[in-house]
Amino acid sequence: MTDIKGKAAKLMLEVRAAKPLVHHITNFVVMNETANITLCTGARPVMAHAKEEVEEMVSAADALVLNIGTLWPEQVDAMRLAAHRANECAVPIILDPVGAGATRLRTESARRLLGEFSIAIARGNRAEIAVLIGCEANIRGVDSNGTAEDPTKLAMKFARQYGCTAAVTGPVDIVTDGTCVVRVANGHPFMNSITGTGCMATSVVAAYAAVEKDFVSASAAALSAFGLAGEIAARTAHGPGTFHTNLYDALAGLTEDAFRAGARIEVTNQ
Amino acid sequence: MTDIKGKAAKLMLEVRAAKPLVHHITNFVVMNETANITLCTGARPVMAHAKEEVEEMVSAADALVLNIGTLWPEQVDAMRLAAHRANECAVPIILDPVGAGATRLRTESARRLLGEFSIAIARGNRAEIAVLIGCEANIRGVDSNGTAEDPTKLAMKFARQYGCTAAVTGPVDIVTDGTCVVRVANGHPFMNSITGTGCMATSVVAAYAAVEKDFVSASAAALSAFGLAGEIAARTAHGPGTFHTNLYDALAGLTEDAFRAGARIEVTNQ
Amino acid sequence: MTDIKGKAAKLMLEVRAAKPLVHHITNFVVMNETANITLCTGARPVMAHAKEEVEEMVSAADALVLNIGTLWPEQVDAMRLAAHRANECAVPIILDPVGAGATRLRTESARRLLGEFSIAIARGNRAEIAVLIGCEANIRGVDSNGTAEDPTKLAMKFARQYGCTAAVTGPVDIVTDGTCVVRVANGHPFMNSITGTGCMATSVVAAYAAVEKDFVSASAAALSAFGLAGEIAARTAHGPGTFHTNLYDALAGLTEDAFRAGARIEVTNQ
Repeated sequence: MTDIKGKAAKLMLEVRAAKPLVHHITNFVVMNETANITLCTGARPVMAHAKEEVEEMVSAADALVLNIGTLWPEQVDAMRLAAHRANECAVPIILDPVGAGATRLRTESARRLLGEFSIAIARGNRAEIAVLIGCEANIRGVDSNGTAEDPTKLAMKFARQYGCTAAVTGPVDIVTDGTCVVRVANGHPFMNSITGTGCMATSVVAAYAAVEKDFVSASAAALSAFGLAGEIAARTAHGPGTFHTNLYDALAGLTEDAFRAGARIEVTNQ
Repeated sequence: MTDIKGKAAKLMLEVRAAKPLVHHITNFVVMNETANITLCTGARPVMAHAKEEVEEMVSAADALVLNIGTLWPEQVDAMRLAAHRANECAVPIILDPVGAGATRLRTESARRLLGEFSIAIARGNRAEIAVLIGCEANIRGVDSNGTAEDPTKLAMKFARQYGCTAAVTGPVDIVTDGTCVVRVANGHPFMNSITGTGCMATSVVAAYAAVEKDFVSASAAALSAFGLAGEIAARTAHGPGTFHTNLYDALAGLTEDAFRAGARIEVTNQ
Repeated sequence: MTDIKGKAAKLMLEVRAAKPLVHHITNFVVMNETANITLCTGARPVMAHAKEEVEEMVSAADALVLNIGTLWPEQVDAMRLAAHRANECAVPIILDPVGAGATRLRTESARRLLGEFSIAIARGNRAEIAVLIGCEANIRGVDSNGTAEDPTKLAMKFARQYGCTAAVTGPVDIVTDGTCVVRVANGHPFMNSITGTGCMATSVVAAYAAVEKDFVSASAAALSAFGLAGEIAARTAHGPGTFHTNLYDALAGLTEDAFRAGARIEVTNQ
């Protein structure tokens, strides 16, 4: 992993060339937005949540996103059916534990999915990741980042406990498989001014994980590209509305040169 | 209530400072848009509709939005669970009776919620408000304003019958608790060119009601800020698409000076 | 049908004058977007999917959209109730078989709706239309157009088999009732860069079918106006985000002169 930035740039182009299919079982708030951001990576989204079709759909997919942002029990059943088949077919599962810690339904469902299946990557904020490994966190609603824990230690512990890659987003994103740690310092405060940027980040991570089985590199590359798109989008934004519109343009139009110039990815141990 | 405009300006700043949590049980058409407009007020939205989690979620919230725009019976059950807990916790409930009068399911569900729970504010158009107090109204779909009734009389009667604040939107918005009447004359015809501006108005009202228990002032301040944002957004819009984008920018960027200069709020009796 | 372009221009104005009500039972990904594009035609959208209200809602509507993009079995039940009443009330049904061929649930549900009810228009891509008449098609997810079949032959066969108008979209759209064939060559590659343009096209077709019982002319006029709006939107777009925003502006602002100058509709046999 000597040239993480070069590898990330290459991955960005590979997603565009391969156009992987990313099956989402996701929340109702961001269905359109996560489908559109997936298209901006060059991948192709499909949303399907009926128990009667998720196994068939995931069999044809290159990655599976499980996002619990507006969870209900039947959706958990559908997620479990899809996850079981995904594991059978070696389709990587990317979990977004939206609002874990806010309600028992969310915390327990996220833990259940992490316990029953082989999850490739969990992408969450610090509070969500903290609560899933039993740490204290200050959670109200779905956007809290309040925890006293060091994010790198949190991510390491999470990755080791669940045997997956943890992608913990915040002012600096931490990505680790429990051994290697990568820090991504792209992003812009405007990203907190619209709903669903966390969910979008998860979809971008899934698109990259669909073409690269080194999930630490895939996650770091995805978060860097998405964060950099946020920085570019902010330059000409007049508020959250224009920022939201620009974000799609910026990710879709990100050139290799601009990525190499702007990506802030750093391997901090290996 | 001698300086309603000054009080409204102060409320706008209080929402931004307090960042209240607004729990929405709402329709599928506007989930993203109402979450984003809530963020533009400075408040924080959370969407959760599963019976298994709504009581826990609303316990941590500062206001609860019940919006019946794509109603189904299980959602009514979840709304009733959340409303019961909200009343126990003194969390104000803001009801948006979308399409009341269009179908029996909507009319009866709205009446049931108004009858069983203490609703702080009902925000609807003239036809929706009229039909809920047994008046004639011309309703097809969800956007009809056709009724021969005087909107102030409608709002007064509704507020008295249900013991809540009525916020009846239209070319001029009428807000009343059955005694005090406030008229808000902000807004722009472009607001009818996109879906969900009524639902967005309700979310903005909820954000203000989360920090101000004088619900007439809270509703009037919210509707004035949102309507003024619509006026500002329209200035540089080329159609409904750019208007929609600009609307978020305008509400998020509304300054105290611009609000004081542009707000058209009038106490008409007290 | 000597002046198909003149008839199409007239239809565009008739939708704006009549403001028909278009009832949608549709997928969760594009609820907001299809409601907004319907408003841009001048028609009025209403979204309602509860079994308890769809019959009442469709009775008051001028067209019914059935879109299976995030199908689940209870939604099929609601679609069947609505379709039965729509047929009784002579409300035209416009079917969008999103992802037919991708899963058995989708293929069988689309076939069931086509078999049980009188469908006015089916709007789909080539692969969806092919699979519903038993042809081979390369389908993964919901956006595949891969089939070796000639689109005109596919559309003719579909229209005759199901006794409806087929509107098969692609680089050139083919519209036919099994006898008359109309080709529409408007559109822009940017339309594939955002999710839901197929679903939006279906909603625009429904708005036109609500005012014109010659469903071939209605479909061709709608697809031409929508495709031309895409061309106009692309001119000032910097990527998929600004294209999406511009698309609403362009359709809402389309003038009769611009339509007559830009529409590429051709009757190829009659």
